[in-house]
Amino acid sequence: MSDLPKSVKLKEVGPREGFQFEKGAIGLQDKISLVDALSDTGVKTIEFTSFVSPKWVPQMADAEQMVAGIKRAPGVAYEAIWLNAAGLERAARLREALALRPMFSVAGSDTFMRKNTNRSVDERLAELPGWAERYQKLGMDWLDVGVMAAFGCNYEGDVEPRHVVTVLQKTEQTANACGSRLGGIGLADTMGWANPLQIKRVVGTVRERWPDTPVKLHLHDTRALAIANIVAALEMGVDCFDSAVAGMGGCPFAAHKGAAGNVTTEDVVFLCQEMGIETGIDLDAMIAAGQLAERVVGHPLPGKLKSGGNLATYRARARPA
Amino acid sequence: MSDLPKSVKLKEVGPREGFQFEKGAIGLQDKISLVDALSDTGVKTIEFTSFVSPKWVPQMADAEQMVAGIKRAPGVAYEAIWLNAAGLERAARLREALALRPMFSVAGSDTFMRKNTNRSVDERLAELPGWAERYQKLGMDWLDVGVMAAFGCNYEGDVEPRHVVTVLQKTEQTANACGSRLGGIGLADTMGWANPLQIKRVVGTVRERWPDTPVKLHLHDTRALAIANIVAALEMGVDCFDSAVAGMGGCPFAAHKGAAGNVTTEDVVFLCQEMGIETGIDLDAMIAAGQLAERVVGHPLPGKLKSGGNLATYRARARPA
Repeated sequence: MSDLPKSVKLKEVGPREGFQFEKGAIGLQDKISLVDALSDTGVKTIEFTSFVSPKWVPQMADAEQMVAGIKRAPGVAYEAIWLNAAGLERAARLREALALRPMFSVAGSDTFMRKNTNRSVDERLAELPGWAERYQKLGMDWLDVGVMAAFGCNYEGDVEPRHVVTVLQKTEQTANACGSRLGGIGLADTMGWANPLQIKRVVGTVRERWPDTPVKLHLHDTRALAIANIVAALEMGVDCFDSAVAGMGGCPFAAHKGAAGNVTTEDVVFLCQEMGIETGIDLDAMIAAGQLAERVVGHPLPGKLKSGGNLATYRARARPA
Repeated sequence: MSDLPKSVKLKEVGPREGFQFEKGAIGLQDKISLVDALSDTGVKTIEFTSFVSPKWVPQMADAEQMVAGIKRAPGVAYEAIWLNAAGLERAARLREALALRPMFSVAGSDTFMRKNTNRSVDERLAELPGWAERYQKLGMDWLDVGVMAAFGCNYEGDVEPRHVVTVLQKTEQTANACGSRLGGIGLADTMGWANPLQIKRVVGTVRERWPDTPVKLHLHDTRALAIANIVAALEMGVDCFDSAVAGMGGCPFAAHKGAAGNVTTEDVVFLCQEMGIETGIDLDAMIAAGQLAERVVGHPLPGKLKSGGNLATYRARARPA
């Protein structure tokens, strides 16, 4: 396991991924309290809201109020997402407070792309020049490209690593043609298809083509393999992951049967702690944030450290000074 | 990952580990229905009850009725456990129906051993000759030695791999001195301390000393690493694991906050399926058994495949014949 990174960067996506799933209305102050708790954990990036149409995602109608309400900790990047030009405009108006990122998403599955965005991958790529221009006007001449369903798709089945490379190549060519470069590559296991062997194959294939481009993974724990997949990625030297406090973003145990959360932040922090990998995150503070997340949403969330507890505490008790 | 085994043997321990945790009384027929469902999954060993004092574990007072009531599938070994000579006697009376196993447990932590059995490890070893004799009378001249808390202890902290070897050596010497041999080695992560690196260290250290002795792992998912730990063990060539349908044996989400179940059988079967490792178990049948387990105990259980679903089903739908 000699390729294990010395440190990893986690992006906390719980508030952004999680709140949109909740059926009951969650108060603005409750949402803000969770973001503020996360700000105190040492995590360096928090994706906390979406600038999307309140008609489609009423839970995110308060994006501007969230931006105004949260306490901004020094050194923490506060990120949001958008799905169309109007959303980016709303976010850009708040760029003093937000860390804008030139995101552009495609998919390893055409069917998933259509179901999710009503566009084929090629139709999506036809929109790239418009996005490149908008981001360039904001001073960003690169695209962070996310590939959804990069490991498999409920509609199309397995996704071949070579196909992921093909989609990324097309995206890079289209970007280059309008003066933008490929900034980073995000590989998302949107529907929980990945396993440790496949993580190594996909990451390896992508790395072979883009050896110097940062790769980030976004893993859902639909089928219990997310942490094992992170270990496989760490063994490949991947050092950048999305994760969600308490495993927000769906919960197989409560209101959202069948939905599945992101890999749980505090569980990943624990994994890294035990394997000697730095995260810069205070595990106890992240566990407390996970417990708060559960109170805020009002139902159990899947993360384990919330109840299992930090082994560092047990070690300290076992060996008093 | 060239050391991955071609096939693994899973021992289903859900009914034995799980029912004792339940506060509400679970009817005999319900318990039997779960064992019968497990018998239809293809799993080859089911540990389904305990011959222990009904005074201490009232949930297991029906051990004899369980043995009489279950449907015995051909080729399946039905196992039970006992903690004292009286328990073994009860089990031995039913040996036509039960697969007896000469089990003997020690621990990597003296404090845990005392808390769990009211004996130090040395006091426990002083009882070994009596157990060896009892098992020899039943025709078994070996001991299957289980090491509880082999990876760490809530009371004593980290457990060094060398210490596990020392405890096993003492046990083997004591066994040899009374005419029994070391049959198999079970390493239990009783309190959820293991991580993938440590799994490799402990298994490696034990293997170095006993290269030809089968090693079995018993892993709890207290801190979310059980599946990743199984992957690490598979990479070391370990091919024998305990697991519990639906993750029975404690549930952090419901009545048993803080308790933690065994690694979930159907999740392990899924992992193996996706990594090309045979289990002989029908994943769909095991998922159905997991869903039944949840109905029987009447509260959510942690396994993921119950809601995530078998990818083989999605693949078949995605590529119709």
